[in-house]
Amino acid sequence: MAYQLHYWPGIQGRGEFVRLALEAAGADYVDVARGDPHAGGGLPAMMHFLEDASVARPPFACPFLVDGKTVVAQTAAILLYLGPRLRLVPAAERDRLWTHQIQLTIADMVAEAHDLHHPVASALYYEDQKKEALRRSEDFRRQRLPRFLGWFEAILQRNAGNAQRDPPRLVGARLSYADLSLFQLVDGLLYALPKATRRVLRRLPHVRALHAGVPRHRRLAAYLSSERRLPFNEEGIFRHYPELDG
Amino acid sequence: MAYQLHYWPGIQGRGEFVRLALEAAGADYVDVARGDPHAGGGLPAMMHFLEDASVARPPFACPFLVDGKTVVAQTAAILLYLGPRLRLVPAAERDRLWTHQIQLTIADMVAEAHDLHHPVASALYYEDQKKEALRRSEDFRRQRLPRFLGWFEAILQRNAGNAQRDPPRLVGARLSYADLSLFQLVDGLLYALPKATRRVLRRLPHVRALHAGVPRHRRLAAYLSSERRLPFNEEGIFRHYPELDG
Repeated sequence: MAYQLHYWPGIQGRGEFVRLALEAAGADYVDVARGDPHAGGGLPAMMHFLEDASVARPPFACPFLVDGKTVVAQTAAILLYLGPRLRLVPAAERDRLWTHQIQLTIADMVAEAHDLHHPVASALYYEDQKKEALRRSEDFRRQRLPRFLGWFEAILQRNAGNAQRDPPRLVGARLSYADLSLFQLVDGLLYALPKATRRVLRRLPHVRALHAGVPRHRRLAAYLSSERRLPFNEEGIFRHYPELDG
Repeated sequence: MAYQLHYWPGIQGRGEFVRLALEAAGADYVDVARGDPHAGGGLPAMMHFLEDASVARPPFACPFLVDGKTVVAQTAAILLYLGPRLRLVPAAERDRLWTHQIQLTIADMVAEAHDLHHPVASALYYEDQKKEALRRSEDFRRQRLPRFLGWFEAILQRNAGNAQRDPPRLVGARLSYADLSLFQLVDGLLYALPKATRRVLRRLPHVRALHAGVPRHRRLAAYLSSERRLPFNEEGIFRHYPELDG
């Protein structure tokens, strides 16, 4: 049976980290909220899981994945679940834990990239917290961006064999879901803060090579040029407000 | 061999979620950074893992757990690893995933509770971002606090058998690490924002009962009254600044 992915239509958001894994593996899946409401798609299907009191284990938020009777929310937990099923993670427990740990660190940076433009409240417009956003983005560009991306560079550099491998891999020698997520993170940062991100990437050859290499994957190349790949926009996590780019 | 927990000495912080699990299980562990530097303890042991280029898989940040050759960072991943070993999670995969999903949602709320007093930058003093903190805390009290705690109430209510169980449990009938973490989260919120948290808890009998019940656990009662339990303070995640409590 096809996997069901539930996420807001119209933005890449956190759903995109799951989409990239499903697409790279060529998995059979339905992007439910983007489907036809007359065929069980659309937002009502998603809101059922989030709001109906009859759901014993409701997700706190989307994205979530439905696989038969299993419902998994939280992006990193979805990928922990999908990883072995899609062959996007090595078999050994310690490698799986390490991949998950990298994914959780990516999730932390994603949350910070969101709070760049929403430092006060998700419920308020950007325009109503722009002054705070200007202060937060300065710290993000100077401290957080180099610190996070520098860590990804270090672990790529320390993964044996990467000096001879193009693109380099985060865990072992094969593509993992963490590679896909790091591609997406860097892609989003290049959209949101092109000047600051390019400046930091100049000193990070492994991260640059990973970002350049992932779209050469056959299935991902097809996905990225399809209509299934939504463009970045100013409703999602990564938003381009030039004033936040310094 | 004893588990090694590495975390900043002097604060409960994220390390406390791991400590509670180790203590509840009566596990053999060393709180390394609080130990004697002449006996391999103290901060140098922690900084080795964070900073030495010889570490192949360095944690991005503490807390992290060392178990023989395995090093696990990210609080939720540490508990995912420890859960089965400490018998603090059910055996079935779907229950383990659900427990992890709850833990990740707790982690999200912990991050928001931190950003309450540091909405601009972790690297700046509270006093230098107090104006922003006042705005952010208002949204947190009105929107985020009831939304998160309301979700925990809903899942406690929907866990079969909890109506007859005191204290109620988040997953199944036995104590899990998620119960311990929810206790700690509520405890921290009651310290940081006593007025706002008590107001929200008035309508959440299951969350109140869980918070009241966990410290009756024999081993936890001993831990909570020992010197190993650090007091809350204004260096940690949960900080009491009365002006942020409305």
